[in-house]
Amino acid sequence: MMPTSFHRRWGAGIDGNADEGSPAIVLSGGYEDDEDHGDVIIYTGAGGNDPNTGQQIADQTWENPGNAGLIKDMNDGLPVRVTRGYKHKSPLSPSEGYTYAGLYGVEDAWQEKGRSGYVICRYRLIYMGDGESEIPEAQTELDYGKKKKRLSEGTVVRIVRDTKISRAIKKLYKYRCQVCGISIVAKSTPYAEGAHIKPIGRPHDGDDSTDNILCLCPNHHVMLDKGAFSIANNFTLIGCLDGKLIVNPKHIINPHNLEYHRESHGFN
Amino acid sequence: MMPTSFHRRWGAGIDGNADEGSPAIVLSGGYEDDEDHGDVIIYTGAGGNDPNTGQQIADQTWENPGNAGLIKDMNDGLPVRVTRGYKHKSPLSPSEGYTYAGLYGVEDAWQEKGRSGYVICRYRLIYMGDGESEIPEAQTELDYGKKKKRLSEGTVVRIVRDTKISRAIKKLYKYRCQVCGISIVAKSTPYAEGAHIKPIGRPHDGDDSTDNILCLCPNHHVMLDKGAFSIANNFTLIGCLDGKLIVNPKHIINPHNLEYHRESHGFN
Repeated sequence: MMPTSFHRRWGAGIDGNADEGSPAIVLSGGYEDDEDHGDVIIYTGAGGNDPNTGQQIADQTWENPGNAGLIKDMNDGLPVRVTRGYKHKSPLSPSEGYTYAGLYGVEDAWQEKGRSGYVICRYRLIYMGDGESEIPEAQTELDYGKKKKRLSEGTVVRIVRDTKISRAIKKLYKYRCQVCGISIVAKSTPYAEGAHIKPIGRPHDGDDSTDNILCLCPNHHVMLDKGAFSIANNFTLIGCLDGKLIVNPKHIINPHNLEYHRESHGFN
Repeated sequence: MMPTSFHRRWGAGIDGNADEGSPAIVLSGGYEDDEDHGDVIIYTGAGGNDPNTGQQIADQTWENPGNAGLIKDMNDGLPVRVTRGYKHKSPLSPSEGYTYAGLYGVEDAWQEKGRSGYVICRYRLIYMGDGESEIPEAQTELDYGKKKKRLSEGTVVRIVRDTKISRAIKKLYKYRCQVCGISIVAKSTPYAEGAHIKPIGRPHDGDDSTDNILCLCPNHHVMLDKGAFSIANNFTLIGCLDGKLIVNPKHIINPHNLEYHRESHGFN
């Protein structure tokens, strides 16, 4: 049976705050930039729209409580209960009323210019299961994986993927981080991560090519992905870090990718 | 059609080295400690057994080329082609000859005492798809996830899971790493990871309880998981780190979990 109490403020779109996270969202049709691909949803944050017309009239910010809550969800792996409303433009929407869509994980957050011309906060949400039997304590019992294996050990916070191309970059830097120069070594084998500057997932569609990949330690990879710092075209670090990116002369980095990253995280 | 050239040295069990990784293994029945659960395989490393009788007569080491190659696979997310032989004790084994089992990712590596009493190297392998259409370049085209979605962006290197319990620990430490004291902050929200001392996955079966969880930055989480350092019962750091773990008086850590971690990574 569909729970009736899991979203307390139907009108607000996002119910949450920076301390507790945002436990639920509604795809209400209120934001023209939302994209619904079923198991992947590109969701627009809250704020900046006229309460009467729904039109975007100002920039959205990360300080909005609902938006900050979704960042908290991403950082802590808290699942978000998603509901589709009849006004939301998607073949998956109900013809009337609201239907529970399932639990989603927040995999990415960035900013971009919306159709209105104003800056909007954006999130990529990934379907994690219906969590039906466990609402509202579903975060430890999610369906994930082809055999609907229950991850009783918890939600997925971060998936690090690696590609053939990124291994070439890691080899070039001898697995040393291009920000701090360290290399993690365990059992005589070095470890580093290939970090895409312009993310390769939908909707960014960055290239999996050496001009879009950095060799980073896990800490600086997390910080790049979450936009704690960015990189100027002359490789100066901006945001919470000082200094310059270490760049091997053989490693050509595309300035458009750096620009995209700065734009996504409010550094331009 | 099954490829015939993907494993060059049938007798050796693992074909590989620390620089290139180990691209293929055979479950040949040669190691009494192997466990085959289908999509999860607990695999025993190479070395230390009598070539004639197959009996374990010495400790296995990470320096063995095949074993080192599997560590490289884990660190770089290189998939391993697995083959089952007729002598391997599993309902999934063929009655004669060898069958290709699919591509697996190396998710974990540790040491333990085998049934023989000698130290063995152990790996947890997770099924990632058959990669049939792409052998031998399969690493960018793996099946993963319930809808057999192709991860064209690359293999999975590391999945960070989080639990309700670990969020309590992260809150207690205000998202500061218990090794280095730093906290990663992005978009005004702190980020840390809950790290299980005794891993919660099969076959370790550590508890998802506060006495088994540390609040760590991604770098020290990777290093703990890979056994680059361990922790004495008095919280002194051992291995590649100096100093002491930061422990809040409210945080009771079970010394048996620390002991298990030291044992798994050769620190006792």
